[in-house]
Amino acid sequence: MLEATADPRFENISAKLHDHAAAHPGFSAQLSIRIGDDLVLDDVVGTRLDGGSITGVYSVSKGVAALVIAQLVHDGALELDRAVIDYWPEFGANGKTAITVRQVLSHRAGLPLAARTLAIQELADAGAAAVLAEQRPLWAPGSAFGYHALTIGILMEELVRRSAGTTLQRFFDTQIREPLGADFYLGLPADLDHRYRWVEDPRLDPTQAAEVASRPPVDDLAAAVFSNTDAPDDRSPQGVSTNNVEIRRRGPAAIGGVGNTRGLSLLYAATLPGTRRPIANPEVFADMAQQQSWGIDRVLNVANCFGTVFMLPQPRMPFGCVGAYGHDGAGGALAFADPATGVAFAYIPSPMQYPGGADPLSIELARDAMLVVRASA
Amino acid sequence: MLEATADPRFENISAKLHDHAAAHPGFSAQLSIRIGDDLVLDDVVGTRLDGGSITGVYSVSKGVAALVIAQLVHDGALELDRAVIDYWPEFGANGKTAITVRQVLSHRAGLPLAARTLAIQELADAGAAAVLAEQRPLWAPGSAFGYHALTIGILMEELVRRSAGTTLQRFFDTQIREPLGADFYLGLPADLDHRYRWVEDPRLDPTQAAEVASRPPVDDLAAAVFSNTDAPDDRSPQGVSTNNVEIRRRGPAAIGGVGNTRGLSLLYAATLPGTRRPIANPEVFADMAQQQSWGIDRVLNVANCFGTVFMLPQPRMPFGCVGAYGHDGAGGALAFADPATGVAFAYIPSPMQYPGGADPLSIELARDAMLVVRASA
Amino acid sequence: MLEATADPRFENISAKLHDHAAAHPGFSAQLSIRIGDDLVLDDVVGTRLDGGSITGVYSVSKGVAALVIAQLVHDGALELDRAVIDYWPEFGANGKTAITVRQVLSHRAGLPLAARTLAIQELADAGAAAVLAEQRPLWAPGSAFGYHALTIGILMEELVRRSAGTTLQRFFDTQIREPLGADFYLGLPADLDHRYRWVEDPRLDPTQAAEVASRPPVDDLAAAVFSNTDAPDDRSPQGVSTNNVEIRRRGPAAIGGVGNTRGLSLLYAATLPGTRRPIANPEVFADMAQQQSWGIDRVLNVANCFGTVFMLPQPRMPFGCVGAYGHDGAGGALAFADPATGVAFAYIPSPMQYPGGADPLSIELARDAMLVVRASA
Repeated sequence: MLEATADPRFENISAKLHDHAAAHPGFSAQLSIRIGDDLVLDDVVGTRLDGGSITGVYSVSKGVAALVIAQLVHDGALELDRAVIDYWPEFGANGKTAITVRQVLSHRAGLPLAARTLAIQELADAGAAAVLAEQRPLWAPGSAFGYHALTIGILMEELVRRSAGTTLQRFFDTQIREPLGADFYLGLPADLDHRYRWVEDPRLDPTQAAEVASRPPVDDLAAAVFSNTDAPDDRSPQGVSTNNVEIRRRGPAAIGGVGNTRGLSLLYAATLPGTRRPIANPEVFADMAQQQSWGIDRVLNVANCFGTVFMLPQPRMPFGCVGAYGHDGAGGALAFADPATGVAFAYIPSPMQYPGGADPLSIELARDAMLVVRASA
Repeated sequence: MLEATADPRFENISAKLHDHAAAHPGFSAQLSIRIGDDLVLDDVVGTRLDGGSITGVYSVSKGVAALVIAQLVHDGALELDRAVIDYWPEFGANGKTAITVRQVLSHRAGLPLAARTLAIQELADAGAAAVLAEQRPLWAPGSAFGYHALTIGILMEELVRRSAGTTLQRFFDTQIREPLGADFYLGLPADLDHRYRWVEDPRLDPTQAAEVASRPPVDDLAAAVFSNTDAPDDRSPQGVSTNNVEIRRRGPAAIGGVGNTRGLSLLYAATLPGTRRPIANPEVFADMAQQQSWGIDRVLNVANCFGTVFMLPQPRMPFGCVGAYGHDGAGGALAFADPATGVAFAYIPSPMQYPGGADPLSIELARDAMLVVRASA
Repeated sequence: MLEATADPRFENISAKLHDHAAAHPGFSAQLSIRIGDDLVLDDVVGTRLDGGSITGVYSVSKGVAALVIAQLVHDGALELDRAVIDYWPEFGANGKTAITVRQVLSHRAGLPLAARTLAIQELADAGAAAVLAEQRPLWAPGSAFGYHALTIGILMEELVRRSAGTTLQRFFDTQIREPLGADFYLGLPADLDHRYRWVEDPRLDPTQAAEVASRPPVDDLAAAVFSNTDAPDDRSPQGVSTNNVEIRRRGPAAIGGVGNTRGLSLLYAATLPGTRRPIANPEVFADMAQQQSWGIDRVLNVANCFGTVFMLPQPRMPFGCVGAYGHDGAGGALAFADPATGVAFAYIPSPMQYPGGADPLSIELARDAMLVVRASA
């Protein structure tokens, strides 16, 4: 069910997606691939989503928020290697005066956890930022990194407030989303709620369900990071997802994005060299794609690899060629740009995939896309 | 056989310890848990130890020695971020002028191994420190970390000599142990020898024995670190343990501590906010609990996590909440404080547990304690 | 078939090599061990190589090129902790002004991959260096390390050009190889081609062959690093090995060395304290053996450990005592010096061993040699 431009080179990729759907009843997914500005594959499988559906994509939002950072860097409003306190003096408390913007944006600042429980209403709020500004880093700043699952969004938002005098969400909306016509939102307007598809819990097979049930009650850093709000980490209307209208409306940069793969791929395409509507100079993205963090993530305890905001391909998650940049999300979504091949890629599954993070299928489809382009180059 | 204040919330923890003992004939252990200054569980199982017995706890001693460092920092006699050479000029030889006190105290200085074999009599001695002062670091200082099993004690001791004009052991005795009345010693007086219980080798099951027997003869960094003295690394009266009277009397900071869980929990309780008899401002401990080292330990080749002297909870050893600090020992003992719950925890098994380091049972009991307090908060 | 000085202490090591050969038909290997300047074992098994054969040893070449660096450091022509731009101003482009010589030489500069495909003819050429000088590092310089499989050679060569005014190959030939009379070449003269033995592909058993066949097509950093030239990564006369006359003649420092274990062990012996013909002060080698990089190699995704150019023993590859330095090669060869025991060791197998890097047998033989010397000390 190819919906748009059908580049025959991508037929096998489409077939693989459809085969997967056929083998997994109840599975649905959008897949959009662009080469430069051209949509070369726009596909959808299953019945939960159609090609135009919009849904929550969790941390894929971080990569979208990074586009705002990129534009501010391009404009000279924000310099990545300056100290955060140059923009945000209060941030210097408790040993944080030397921390740079880039360290904050590459999960190195030691602030993965707010010192107090945050209200959901604060997630895109200067009040949450003030909590982080005051506290002591968990690690010697710069000495380690660990996924700032919620807090990197709070920190990005405050940096935008301080450097641009507006909110990250408003900046995104007026400077990026509208000009590009991208079907992706940080803060979904109420009049688009009718297009929103509920984020659904993963369907667990008995082995997975037993695995989840057997997990001991934990009280460690990762658990603390994911229970750092006053809301349950679930898909209920009160939980920490875009199913919660408080989150959907505010669109916190860390997890609050709503959209589809057409929109995501359009956004990433606008970062590639040669695009007709550049968000920033490609040099800015090349700089943000430079690796800042590699090794065992102190929070997630798995190998991770980050540039400035963006996730980078690495052995555990080899989604693109050297130089690619993007982000995955808890539900299995993945979006990225790959300058080496000119590919902008976006994938959103529904329901959420277990155990979370980029669906292995998305990695496989992404690699296939790279190989297709390389083979025909 | 609950021996002291019985807080009913901890009955299940006591029961777990007793069940373990019932299932493991020959196993003995002390367990003391305080909340703030109150001893809420003081338990003992088996026949090797009674509640008041004192025995050797190996590297748990490092955490006790850290209390001396904390008091010196509190007093302003020692600053963690100053260069070691500010206190100890000779230390600067062979490329070590920029090394900070904090790097030395977080296993980052590249001195896990003395350049020559040390005599047991030197272990708490300025002569051993002079050897380390002279040598070249094994790694570019600060670029990596690895467990300074013996040498961190030698380095702490010299820093105390230089900054306080007395020995770490005397400082501990007069400024910390006596005022608190803690049943824990760095240098056991001869008149307490009658209370000392021998450290016993682990009892290996056939699988473990085969595992040990099949180990190839090694000549690598870890082996060198553990054979850096002129004494065998065993439990004989001539070996590297407090069974050796030379070690028991001197109480080297790295491995020479002798005491019981009542004493250890009392010491850690005196580090918590709100304690009646603080060793130092809680801010000092919060600073020392900031992570300095995380990743694969170059000496032990396992994931480790250190603050300044203290071990921190981490996925391989999740003993406490975010912010906890303590230390384990080769025999299986564990002691720590957890500011988030107000818990001070100490556990000492006998005989030693295989394969060494915090007994998995101790981690389980510690996590249970956290959950009990959290649930009743 | 002991060919030279037979020190009876090494008979068991010789026997182990011969047993291995007997159990693996078609296997051939050279093994030379010196203690100080004395050749205490010079052995060969199988029919592919004889004691005097010369063949390609891939990255073992890097350790030989490091001898040139050492001599330049000894002479004061090159300082490891100076910025590269002090010698090579053009290198400073794209954020590389602060990178030190030592970072470049310990795989930390973020340049494991040339920005464009290199011609084989460029591998020992200033043109290749110019490509690296211009590009942006893949990671924030100094923040990570990853095997610069080809590029470390290009970088060493340019540093020699800039600091010594000659090529690394010519410097090696006139200052090191000829004076020592070492049978090892960076750039094999045509009149020695008759002694060259072809590098042969590994013989795979069915399990290994299936393993190789089942590898997915990859397009990641490691693959990019190993396909960074216009030649296939194979053993054909056109491939990236010394079977290719373009490579054999030029002797690029990263992979182009040709020689035998007598030559390699002679070279490493000339780095040890007390040698009659020192290449540099032993202090220079002690400094170059200081660990600069440890952890998960960003390119190879395995634990690696590097000093300045040299590989160091570590748990995954425990070839020597603390303080040893050397290098392995893709085909299974290994050569190193061990100051603690005075051993200089070299091993070359043929055909190449699967899966590559130091043949496990070589590690075993090396450890046996250490233990023999230690036992008889």
